[in-house]
Amino acid sequence: MTPKINFFYYKINIMIKKKIFVIGGDGFCGWPISLKLSKEDNEVTILDNLSRRNIDNELGTNSLTNISTIEERIETWESKTGKKINFYNINVAKEFDRLVNLLKEHSPDTIIHLGEQRAAPYSMKSSKTKRYTVDNNLNATHNILAAIVESKKDIHLVHMGTMGVYGYGAVPDTIIPEGYIDIKMKNSSGDFMDTKILHPAYPGSIYHMTKTQDALFFQFYAKNYKIRITDLHQGIIWGLHTDETKLDEKLVNRFDYDSDYGTCLNRFIMQSAYDIPLTIYGTGGQTRAFIHIKDSAQCVNIAVNNPPSSGEPVKIFNQMTETHNLLYLADVIKKVNPDTKVEFCDNPRNELVKNDLVVSNKQFLDLGLKPIYLDEEHIKEIFDSIKSNKNRVNMKFIKPMSFWKN
Amino acid sequence: MTPKINFFYYKINIMIKKKIFVIGGDGFCGWPISLKLSKEDNEVTILDNLSRRNIDNELGTNSLTNISTIEERIETWESKTGKKINFYNINVAKEFDRLVNLLKEHSPDTIIHLGEQRAAPYSMKSSKTKRYTVDNNLNATHNILAAIVESKKDIHLVHMGTMGVYGYGAVPDTIIPEGYIDIKMKNSSGDFMDTKILHPAYPGSIYHMTKTQDALFFQFYAKNYKIRITDLHQGIIWGLHTDETKLDEKLVNRFDYDSDYGTCLNRFIMQSAYDIPLTIYGTGGQTRAFIHIKDSAQCVNIAVNNPPSSGEPVKIFNQMTETHNLLYLADVIKKVNPDTKVEFCDNPRNELVKNDLVVSNKQFLDLGLKPIYLDEEHIKEIFDSIKSNKNRVNMKFIKPMSFWKN
Repeated sequence: MTPKINFFYYKINIMIKKKIFVIGGDGFCGWPISLKLSKEDNEVTILDNLSRRNIDNELGTNSLTNISTIEERIETWESKTGKKINFYNINVAKEFDRLVNLLKEHSPDTIIHLGEQRAAPYSMKSSKTKRYTVDNNLNATHNILAAIVESKKDIHLVHMGTMGVYGYGAVPDTIIPEGYIDIKMKNSSGDFMDTKILHPAYPGSIYHMTKTQDALFFQFYAKNYKIRITDLHQGIIWGLHTDETKLDEKLVNRFDYDSDYGTCLNRFIMQSAYDIPLTIYGTGGQTRAFIHIKDSAQCVNIAVNNPPSSGEPVKIFNQMTETHNLLYLADVIKKVNPDTKVEFCDNPRNELVKNDLVVSNKQFLDLGLKPIYLDEEHIKEIFDSIKSNKNRVNMKFIKPMSFWKN
Repeated sequence: MTPKINFFYYKINIMIKKKIFVIGGDGFCGWPISLKLSKEDNEVTILDNLSRRNIDNELGTNSLTNISTIEERIETWESKTGKKINFYNINVAKEFDRLVNLLKEHSPDTIIHLGEQRAAPYSMKSSKTKRYTVDNNLNATHNILAAIVESKKDIHLVHMGTMGVYGYGAVPDTIIPEGYIDIKMKNSSGDFMDTKILHPAYPGSIYHMTKTQDALFFQFYAKNYKIRITDLHQGIIWGLHTDETKLDEKLVNRFDYDSDYGTCLNRFIMQSAYDIPLTIYGTGGQTRAFIHIKDSAQCVNIAVNNPPSSGEPVKIFNQMTETHNLLYLADVIKKVNPDTKVEFCDNPRNELVKNDLVVSNKQFLDLGLKPIYLDEEHIKEIFDSIKSNKNRVNMKFIKPMSFWKN
């Protein structure tokens, strides 16, 4: 090689911070995360089989926002920012050899894994959707881990998990810890000994169950193959835009408002905007953890830059910023739209009528997360986006249609 | 219907104790279990895709004993005892609709689920065998559970699990409990509260990992769909014949002696019988739980007749009768064959150099299990069977060939 070429490579090295694969980078969380990481000068490659778009076709649903194709999204991003994002249409749950080859070819520093079916209600609809969720999610996660081992590359895996693995604590009034709990356990002499274990798993849906099973994959591969793994136990996402998705209408994020894929706060805002009573399941006393979509992208960026060491146990963060019950959400929405009505309906889910929820998120706060809290101003911004897409609303999806009691 | 036909059905009802599906009923545990349950006047249907025979083809290995085809086995059993066993060649991990139809058609009272890849060393050989184990075991278990729900039948599921889910305890010197542990866990006021949780999962191989993930399937389906589930955490099986398999040479059980599928005591006896030093991994101080194949069948029979109620948590039994370390096994074998030599070799597994293991098996003992303990007489019986199959031995499989450090 000539000195000139050497210099050229050197320049690229200092410009590019990390090579990052985002599996599921076309989805609701994946797309804003990909843009955020690209904006931060990482070399981003999206791997996605576009399954979320296909499920829209299957259910007859649509994103409220008119999302562009992945190709248009990437072209627009490059034309606006000069930053390139690569894309491969690949099903990581099925195309193992291709995945290994991509790892060998690109040598990513980090893989963000969002390649899982992520709607709890969808996972509970039928045998078909249960089985798809189990087959896709578990094989996807395991293929990624086995591919990292096979590639012989030192890759940090960042997985999008869920707060739902905790099931609101193993004992009443606990502060939900970040992944692990300190317990006392009896030895053969009857003495209680201190030990630290993974928080016991209490999933409330097939989807959540697959995430508790993912945790065992991670524990095993971190211990036996010294893979560096971060598991993000995310709360319910709300919001729609990030600074990056707002740059151009072709970069807009998807917004789901059906009762399978729409998250509860987004759905409530949608119902209020279209004069439909908010359908509160049960008493409305169910408390959940929330996080704004911008903060989700910010957290992933922090996690990417703070990997565990090889040989360390799985690093687990609670990726949420606040907890609220459903009645509180309704109250905030009423402040933005005083005409909002509320309808209490039979709870289609097997869940506690009412629960408290206190969650530790100290790790992200210590690493610099500045949360966006749920307030009238942010709710109003979503309202306005929703109103501007009036022509795309299919009213039949705004009411609950997904039932999972059996 | 005529009165005569009614009477005929009545007679069948009092003769047949239970309708039982044995998934994996052609395997090392499944075959003796099927015969035992058939002998006890249950109506046994074997579901098996013959994958264990296919893996022999893949590895170039063979059962030391000359096992008959499943069709010959079933014909022989019927001709010897007059008892009929049904057989379906089905892959329950892939043929979901067919499985549901079989459940609807036969309405089994019980399903015994042994339809999983069961060799830890095989599961650690390569990406291919890891992925097969994960894909097969998790989809098989989940398909069975989803099929039970889909069939709307009240079916008791008895699953063959493993002692390996415990990983020799979460704290030193524990008595391994039967599935659940009582712990003290901190609440938000800092007080330690009592609670009971599933024993934390510490799998030592991909195979064992899938069983810890199975436990989460079971917990979920027992809680959400009120399925009656028994999980048997079995120790290492030893022995070969049962009273039923000895009835005719065409009923003989398989005997694996390769380092993937042969269990350690059986392999040691084989090595001793053919004047090969016993290959003890590491120090030989590793202690494991054991159970004789006859007791395994006896335990499954007990579990079938003692199902949990609908809505109860998963009933977990430790299916083992004694614990020994590898050096002890060598000593017993030396008593039978004083010429036995021992060779200590590098441990191909990631495991503790030495461990103690005390296991509770109170539930089976209370329900009437009369264990067969590991002694010279039983070891000698296996010796004799091995010697009589000299012409079928492939010497290259007697030494360890399966390595799983990475």
